Amino acid sequence: SPIPTGSGNRGMRLEDDINESIAYYRRENIALIHKKPTPVQIVNVDYPARSRAKITEAYFRQASTTDYNGVYHGHYLDFEAKETRQKQSFPFKNFHDHQLQHLSDVARQQGCAFLIFRFVASGEIFVMKATVFMQLKAESTRKSLPKDVISENSIPVQSRAFPPIDFLPAVERLFFR
Amino acid sequence: SPIPTGSGNRGMRLEDDINESIAYYRRENIALIHKKPTPVQIVNVDYPARSRAKITEAYFRQASTTDYNGVYHGHYLDFEAKETRQKQSFPFKNFHDHQLQHLSDVARQQGCAFLIFRFVASGEIFVMKATVFMQLKAESTRKSLPKDVISENSIPVQSRAFPPIDFLPAVERLFFR
Ligand SMILES: [Mg+2]
Ligand SMILES: [Mg+2]
Repeated sequence: SPIPTGSGNRGMRLEDDINESIAYYRRENIALIHKKPTPVQIVNVDYPARSRAKITEAYFRQASTTDYNGVYHGHYLDFEAKETRQKQSFPFKNFHDHQLQHLSDVARQQGCAFLIFRFVASGEIFVMKATVFMQLKAESTRKSLPKDVISENSIPVQSRAFPPIDFLPAVERLFFR
Repeated sequence: SPIPTGSGNRGMRLEDDINESIAYYRRENIALIHKKPTPVQIVNVDYPARSRAKITEAYFRQASTTDYNGVYHGHYLDFEAKETRQKQSFPFKNFHDHQLQHLSDVARQQGCAFLIFRFVASGEIFVMKATVFMQLKAESTRKSLPKDVISENSIPVQSRAFPPIDFLPAVERLFFR
């Protein structure tokens, strides 16, 4: 969400780390991953003389996809990254239905669809196949996924100085080994 | 360009046909391709009580990528579609440097980077590898690429009722045969 609420701010910190990591991947020719622009519905635009077009009325639109996609050795990658302040489990509601639907569509097209989880308190990061997450969600009777279940069904990533979240080795292990 | 100039309108017609075609590919589970949102730099947002957030000042940003990308049998696809009213050649300037740079980066990551050309007057459509276009551009001393050169270095696509531009068979031939 582009709206600066408390939860949005938390999201932005993880997003900053992901953005730095994908910029590193691009610079080093490891992978080409971009964050998609925030979808905006433009209602009114002014064209003042001698200056650039100014949008004077617009609204945030619901995204129909995830935030990140790109290419890695010819393969299509698509993912969503979320964090929680909860210590023992990750709320299912942090992932929106349209994001999971999109990741399910990607997986059906044989793309690499995955999720990055961060637990803010412990700093732990996990990378999980989106299809595995959806299976666990479908089987669950709870509102959140326990951290030990996440840990058993994903690859951990150590956060570090640079790049802050080196998630591609986990993607390699999940999809190509 | 989202700005409704004459040339923008011409661009929008091709864009509509591409959008209809990728919607068909999505519905039929043939490929999952999306148009990226127009990048906008948001400067000011109002949060009126009891109504949704309204963006009151924003500007169009230069895109750093192309308009379309997606996944087809696990492979990453990325392309740009342009049309011209010129009858015998296609102006190089219709493709922006940042678009060609991005397509070159995609090709280096082994993604399928291509261009769709439409000649408005004749209705002819061609699909060309982006790397081939860049080679032809580098070798040219002219400001546009003659139609016969395009024809010799690309796959023609017949426009039809539905989907209006069925470009995936051409992509198959260019990249996977
Ligand atoms: Mg997000
Ligand atoms: Mg365009």
